[in-house]
Amino acid sequence: MIKAGIIGATGYAGGELVRILSGHKEARIVWYGSRSYIDRKYSDVYQNMFQIVDAQCLDDNMEELAEQADVIFTATPQGFCASMMNEEILGKTKVIDLSADYRIKDVSVYEKWYGIEHKSPQFIEEAVYGLCEVNREDIRKARLVANPGCYTTCSILTAFPLAKEGLIDMKTLIIDAKSGTSGAGRGAKVPNLYCEVNENIKAYGVTTHRHTPEIEEQLGYAAEEKVVLTFTPHLVPMNRGILVTEYASLKKSVTDEEIKAVYDKYYGNEHFIRVLKEGICPETKWVEGSNYVDINVKTDPRTNRIIMMGAIDNLVKGAAGQAVQNMNLMFGLPENEGLNLVPMFP
Amino acid sequence: MIKAGIIGATGYAGGELVRILSGHKEARIVWYGSRSYIDRKYSDVYQNMFQIVDAQCLDDNMEELAEQADVIFTATPQGFCASMMNEEILGKTKVIDLSADYRIKDVSVYEKWYGIEHKSPQFIEEAVYGLCEVNREDIRKARLVANPGCYTTCSILTAFPLAKEGLIDMKTLIIDAKSGTSGAGRGAKVPNLYCEVNENIKAYGVTTHRHTPEIEEQLGYAAEEKVVLTFTPHLVPMNRGILVTEYASLKKSVTDEEIKAVYDKYYGNEHFIRVLKEGICPETKWVEGSNYVDINVKTDPRTNRIIMMGAIDNLVKGAAGQAVQNMNLMFGLPENEGLNLVPMFP
Amino acid sequence: MIKAGIIGATGYAGGELVRILSGHKEARIVWYGSRSYIDRKYSDVYQNMFQIVDAQCLDDNMEELAEQADVIFTATPQGFCASMMNEEILGKTKVIDLSADYRIKDVSVYEKWYGIEHKSPQFIEEAVYGLCEVNREDIRKARLVANPGCYTTCSILTAFPLAKEGLIDMKTLIIDAKSGTSGAGRGAKVPNLYCEVNENIKAYGVTTHRHTPEIEEQLGYAAEEKVVLTFTPHLVPMNRGILVTEYASLKKSVTDEEIKAVYDKYYGNEHFIRVLKEGICPETKWVEGSNYVDINVKTDPRTNRIIMMGAIDNLVKGAAGQAVQNMNLMFGLPENEGLNLVPMFP
Amino acid sequence: MIKAGIIGATGYAGGELVRILSGHKEARIVWYGSRSYIDRKYSDVYQNMFQIVDAQCLDDNMEELAEQADVIFTATPQGFCASMMNEEILGKTKVIDLSADYRIKDVSVYEKWYGIEHKSPQFIEEAVYGLCEVNREDIRKARLVANPGCYTTCSILTAFPLAKEGLIDMKTLIIDAKSGTSGAGRGAKVPNLYCEVNENIKAYGVTTHRHTPEIEEQLGYAAEEKVVLTFTPHLVPMNRGILVTEYASLKKSVTDEEIKAVYDKYYGNEHFIRVLKEGICPETKWVEGSNYVDINVKTDPRTNRIIMMGAIDNLVKGAAGQAVQNMNLMFGLPENEGLNLVPMFP
Repeated sequence: MIKAGIIGATGYAGGELVRILSGHKEARIVWYGSRSYIDRKYSDVYQNMFQIVDAQCLDDNMEELAEQADVIFTATPQGFCASMMNEEILGKTKVIDLSADYRIKDVSVYEKWYGIEHKSPQFIEEAVYGLCEVNREDIRKARLVANPGCYTTCSILTAFPLAKEGLIDMKTLIIDAKSGTSGAGRGAKVPNLYCEVNENIKAYGVTTHRHTPEIEEQLGYAAEEKVVLTFTPHLVPMNRGILVTEYASLKKSVTDEEIKAVYDKYYGNEHFIRVLKEGICPETKWVEGSNYVDINVKTDPRTNRIIMMGAIDNLVKGAAGQAVQNMNLMFGLPENEGLNLVPMFP
Repeated sequence: MIKAGIIGATGYAGGELVRILSGHKEARIVWYGSRSYIDRKYSDVYQNMFQIVDAQCLDDNMEELAEQADVIFTATPQGFCASMMNEEILGKTKVIDLSADYRIKDVSVYEKWYGIEHKSPQFIEEAVYGLCEVNREDIRKARLVANPGCYTTCSILTAFPLAKEGLIDMKTLIIDAKSGTSGAGRGAKVPNLYCEVNENIKAYGVTTHRHTPEIEEQLGYAAEEKVVLTFTPHLVPMNRGILVTEYASLKKSVTDEEIKAVYDKYYGNEHFIRVLKEGICPETKWVEGSNYVDINVKTDPRTNRIIMMGAIDNLVKGAAGQAVQNMNLMFGLPENEGLNLVPMFP
Repeated sequence: MIKAGIIGATGYAGGELVRILSGHKEARIVWYGSRSYIDRKYSDVYQNMFQIVDAQCLDDNMEELAEQADVIFTATPQGFCASMMNEEILGKTKVIDLSADYRIKDVSVYEKWYGIEHKSPQFIEEAVYGLCEVNREDIRKARLVANPGCYTTCSILTAFPLAKEGLIDMKTLIIDAKSGTSGAGRGAKVPNLYCEVNENIKAYGVTTHRHTPEIEEQLGYAAEEKVVLTFTPHLVPMNRGILVTEYASLKKSVTDEEIKAVYDKYYGNEHFIRVLKEGICPETKWVEGSNYVDINVKTDPRTNRIIMMGAIDNLVKGAAGQAVQNMNLMFGLPENEGLNLVPMFP
Repeated sequence: MIKAGIIGATGYAGGELVRILSGHKEARIVWYGSRSYIDRKYSDVYQNMFQIVDAQCLDDNMEELAEQADVIFTATPQGFCASMMNEEILGKTKVIDLSADYRIKDVSVYEKWYGIEHKSPQFIEEAVYGLCEVNREDIRKARLVANPGCYTTCSILTAFPLAKEGLIDMKTLIIDAKSGTSGAGRGAKVPNLYCEVNENIKAYGVTTHRHTPEIEEQLGYAAEEKVVLTFTPHLVPMNRGILVTEYASLKKSVTDEEIKAVYDKYYGNEHFIRVLKEGICPETKWVEGSNYVDINVKTDPRTNRIIMMGAIDNLVKGAAGQAVQNMNLMFGLPENEGLNLVPMFP
């Protein structure tokens, strides 16, 4: 039985980790870290867990946690994990960081987009980018996994096969992303109030959103070229879900069958990636609560473009679900253990 | 392995049965009945089931189904199950009827409130009212279970201990209920369109809602007197969830501790009923996707009333979840098999 | 032209005052008071007012405002208006207080339910309770109007004719109220976040909500007896709207025609109260954005009860709209000036 | 006083026409046409109009209407207006068609994208495309106005100044549009049910949406070149509002000041177009219920692209509001008569 500790257990991603791990046969949570709620019962904060979780919230003591846990999940603000990390911790336990601290290999890019100094750049090289379907083998051997961002998971996986096969002109790639409000976290801010979000849609972080360099780096590895792209996130009045609509010019004429074959080549055996039937557009509701990524594409002969669409639950495949998938890989468990979550509809 | 057949598999309750049974270790679905979608793939209708359910929709042939299935769930309009039922079917298979056909013992009451003739009244006496926490032992032995209505499940369980112990004046009982829109079904009707429901709340079926006599009958058994009450349902802009707020005068002076002891007496060992801590009001979101009933009460010395509150997910404990709980009882399985669904938040 | 000042102009009720007054032919706003946003452009806070309102936010200086304005609207937290009020201010300007400070005649009741000391009880007697349809003549002559609460406006007007005519047993009156989230204000609190409110419904303030004594006092005047009732508010996932469902026992047998005649007697000539046709239940969406109160009732011979239903837009008739209606009365203008707001659907 | 007739008065766009015209000083509605509700009171269909509109619904008799009305609004399915139109009607009355029948000058393009035969192509040439800010002078003289589509109004106006000034490469233009559900109309269809739309977002009509050729034609006039672009609409869980996010490569290096000057050149004097301050992204909620178009742009030196954003209320500026604006122009009235609708927030 894997002993798991969570730092940041009372945020939305942390709460989702608790929900998922409570159904995991090979892991149990030994530490519910939450600086804001120390000594309060976890189920007082998340009433859905009443009579399911009996534990109390603890401090964010990573040193202590490393003694007690086989794996630590850090669902914390940017900079926290990097500021606490050291060789001793990694010598005792595995770490899956849900923040951005170890996602970007070029520390200057990280520091520029996030506006903070990286406190432990020496671990960046070692850290494995935890996009399971792409880096599976490296993840198995990792001590430190950088769990991908929600927008990035969906954005990368949707375009990956075409980038990898060199079918799209990466200079033309534009990603228009739409997210539910849980992506904004549980902080008490006016723009996240019900009345401000409901009956409303807006773009934000236009040209400056921090997930941009992460997507560029990973799709750059796939395409084997430097990628600079446009990424525009939008806030949608719903709790969960990310939909990305991606646009790129085709580099050569391809049939729909060839496109389908490319996606099947990379995803045909993937449990959590569902390439939909021709003509079916992904909808976030169809993956809600699950670890699935639903993907489909449509070519447009009029413009010589291909429109790629992908949908995930931002808190599952975009955060806690993928983190557990990474844990399963790191501990040699079946990749879908604890993750056979059937999407809930309606 | 129990072979289960579903008639009405493409309604919302039917879809929820499929979701829940797909995680059930001792049952598998052998028949996805849906008159509207015969020969279409089930996952074409419910895209969330893509790559999870591979079957096609079949006709509503109950005779044929009785040959193939150990248990039949009928998630069908009122009158259907009663019109198909016969001794031969019940001789071959167990039936859990999610419609109202066998819920009310007095056939004249059924015919008056539902406005249709009952086609097989001879089975009403035998049918067991499938409110698991109340009729557990009878359900274990039943061939035919009348699965309770969504409003009724929540309304009855919330008041049951106080009715049973004679603490409230049943003549003063008023139930004000609020339901998400999935309770209205998947029929294409203008009043259920997004734009009509969103940003709106209304009462409906005032003084005439069909769940009224069902609640009256069951609470009458508990109170051992004839009960006539007021029940007012409301439509709320959300997908899932029922909240009931019930009002009654106390028959004698009781302390909060005594009230708590009464609820503990009946529900202290119930897996699916959570009596909340003092001062915590049930919220539908905290039970979403799960089979839980969250209950709490508050006494009001100013008015000598007690306000009882209960919350369920209308598609789970209010329909498919309770149906599976009944199946587990009927087949001697652990009552919570397939039902360890952790509420999803947010 | 009436010069109007608003203190608390950047709350939701304050914002609605600005929206309504911007279409009022006989009034203009001379002071946008907002302690939180002093010196910021009002339209930077409420972007809907871009190119409509050019002013900047000012301090909450009531003394100074009394010099400049013919009428002051205080859309402020409880206690603020009472703490600022003095004879000098009332000598110079009229005041319409949207808080509870002058609504309750018995200062001890106010202090008990609100938990604060009243700083200017000497003005309570003079203040007129601004429920226009009930106290119209007194409002015309008032210097200080206590604008009613949102729940109270809807609760009182829905039951008023029956209370006044002695047709219902006031001891049996139960009010189950449902409100959109704008009623909770624009404060940044976790329970008001989108993800906490969306897909959720709950009761709150059970037996203790502060609008209770206000409703009891006013219905007590109507019924000419001391009224003690049960009032339970609920939070609904929508921006605007209050629906009340009220229950009471009939004191004698009355026909539907007699009931209708009673409502017509009091509301037949009221511009803003619409008594709906038989069988039509009020819906909040049908009054959204307007100053209307939609009302209907249904008698239930089975229980000898009458169910009364009322719907308003909590920010209009429940706050800013009624405040402007009061202003119109106080200044001898047509009562509906600036208030011919057609409900917006969908 | 202009006598206005509406055909299709009980659809959402028709209902919005009624709402807006009810506040118009120079027009009154003489005909509420609705084939589905003939002889029923209009306010029985739209309860918000109770005690505001007293009329009954009439047939769709355009010949008869031409006798009685000075202007006819056709808010009808594609093909209806074209099938009824003749010289006699246009000799007697003005027509503002809210369908697509006269929007596209090349009848073969219309027939290809809409899949129906055009029954009166002889009037296409005469019809004026009713995008008020672009074709104002022609509209003043028109007998027949083709009121633009909702997506198209927002898409065109957002990019128009840059297309006109030749600053963007039209071959790179991509429009990602998001719409509330009222755009789908009031038809009773499963995909528009509350439970299907709520908590969900999806693209639809990918590469094939009918508004594409309309946008291409109009932006082609502006750019003075043939335009072929990508347009992708999405369905968002909200009632009202369209947001477009448009992407194009800049043809030359321009400063933010130059861009701002270009928008000011075309829109500086426009009452209904608000170019927002630097850094402010349009939000649909800020224009809800009003005739405004909120626009802003952001250049991205990294990709040499410009991101253009525009927001409207799809039922107002995207349908009924623009139709009334056209009527005002056609009858020589102030362009904003009846349209000083302040956006409602929240």
